Amino acid sequence: MANYGYGVDVGGTAVKLGRFTSDGKLVEKWSISTDITDSGANVLADIADTIKENISANSLSRNQLLGVGIGFPGTAYKDGTASAVNIGWDRIPLISTLEGLLGLQVKCLNDANAAALGEMWAGSGKGFEDLLMVTLGTGVGGGVIIGGRLLIGAHCAGGEIGHIPIEPAETRQCNCGSYGCFEQYASATGNVRLANDILASTDEPSTLRSFPQLSSKICWDQALAGDKVALQIAERFCYYLGRGLAAAVNAIDPQVVLIGGGVSKTGQPLIDMTEKYFRAFAFPACRDIPLRLATLGNDAGIYGCVYSLMQ
Amino acid sequence: MANYGYGVDVGGTAVKLGRFTSDGKLVEKWSISTDITDSGANVLADIADTIKENISANSLSRNQLLGVGIGFPGTAYKDGTASAVNIGWDRIPLISTLEGLLGLQVKCLNDANAAALGEMWAGSGKGFEDLLMVTLGTGVGGGVIIGGRLLIGAHCAGGEIGHIPIEPAETRQCNCGSYGCFEQYASATGNVRLANDILASTDEPSTLRSFPQLSSKICWDQALAGDKVALQIAERFCYYLGRGLAAAVNAIDPQVVLIGGGVSKTGQPLIDMTEKYFRAFAFPACRDIPLRLATLGNDAGIYGCVYSLMQ
Repeated sequence: MANYGYGVDVGGTAVKLGRFTSDGKLVEKWSISTDITDSGANVLADIADTIKENISANSLSRNQLLGVGIGFPGTAYKDGTASAVNIGWDRIPLISTLEGLLGLQVKCLNDANAAALGEMWAGSGKGFEDLLMVTLGTGVGGGVIIGGRLLIGAHCAGGEIGHIPIEPAETRQCNCGSYGCFEQYASATGNVRLANDILASTDEPSTLRSFPQLSSKICWDQALAGDKVALQIAERFCYYLGRGLAAAVNAIDPQVVLIGGGVSKTGQPLIDMTEKYFRAFAFPACRDIPLRLATLGNDAGIYGCVYSLMQ
Repeated sequence: MANYGYGVDVGGTAVKLGRFTSDGKLVEKWSISTDITDSGANVLADIADTIKENISANSLSRNQLLGVGIGFPGTAYKDGTASAVNIGWDRIPLISTLEGLLGLQVKCLNDANAAALGEMWAGSGKGFEDLLMVTLGTGVGGGVIIGGRLLIGAHCAGGEIGHIPIEPAETRQCNCGSYGCFEQYASATGNVRLANDILASTDEPSTLRSFPQLSSKICWDQALAGDKVALQIAERFCYYLGRGLAAAVNAIDPQVVLIGGGVSKTGQPLIDMTEKYFRAFAFPACRDIPLRLATLGNDAGIYGCVYSLMQ
């Protein structure tokens, strides 16, 4: 029985790594920068190098190692190749390359899917086997777990709930090419856009007007401090979040919905404000599905990556 | 090895029954009327009687029989109870009652789920194991199959895509209590409502104005005959159908989408008109997912019910 597994979460600026015991304890974590030059050609070699160093520094033998699970913001194809626009990968042979460099089992998965698995294994999804996790960051990522297993999807796009069409009146295009996608509203970016739209539509004074540049955090801080316009923005954000979650839930019917990502740092007020909209749009049988904050924060990905080695 | 199984599809006015060979051939089918008096208390006994008659008329022995799969328009709970508003059932002990009456294995499932299974087994879903089936009738029913198995959902509401919120501008309430649900537009009922709304909004002449009462079929017949307003109604219907299917597909990512139910009798023009909207709102990886007409018609349910016995 192997004792350790590595979880790797590749982001656009940094690669997070963690060494875990096979029963889910994070022994140590560290990060290296993501070298996106040359279409991200050096990223896998850099990952292999830092893992080899860790293996050697801890005098670990091969038979103690479960392998490496790697998550990234893109598509993990069933043939072991990977595409990730922000890193420059276009169907690179991720698994065979990393297995060749390390001589260890490698599994790869989408980062939002990894976060969902991680939360189920060691976070607020513990004890559930049917769950929807949504990650509210620059975009809206989604991960669906049914019967304890990820819904990968026929085109490796299962759980891409950020692109559920939600606002037919939208005239601005989403990155995906469509109009009115969930993530155009319920992401950190969407939050700022809603804020700018609402601020432009009224002359009402607001503390938000004193900030040269808004962020989702600023909007929520001012809302929670009682600014009226900021509260209106927060309500609008939660309306879209609740409606989008209901859309996904009405197709999937999970036991629980977990909310993670940067915007979720707002905490319980985000949940409380979102619940009423979620319940208004959820199918009766699904109206009492709890919305919960994810608890692993930025570590959810590395937890999920390691857990994927055990599936 | 059992040779035959019974599929039973309970509707609000009739119960359809079919005897199948275990390799999927429909040997004979018949129907009895649904006795909805006394909260549907006699329905199961009527079903048991007609099946017993069939067993005896064909001199079948117990060990030749796989059992009875029964579908109905309601919720099939995991504990074997069933609720169906239109029949009057409120968590009746369906499985234990029918097993008691027949001495055969009984499985029960939601009728839209049964149709999805049936189409996968013997209809246009043959060869696929990840599919979304939508049934366009009085409402919009949905069935999701992943890895060859139904997505039942934590509250037995998996695949209830008819209640995905799709139109934020809606002021009329859906039967479920919410506003702007997919089935308020993409059902036969929704089609007529769209038609009445569009006819009321314009003075343009239309052959539709000569019908004392509209139906989805009349609207489509007139559209295909070239009536301009009817075509506008058809486009609007397909806009909603395409957008709602894209919403579900972006969460589930199936291999194929099957379209059945009364409205689907319109045939290929419905698919052709819906595809452009579906593609406009589907996530890029899902844009080429084929939309296909279901092929088993009203028999899909009894096929799926029998197939459920083999799962």
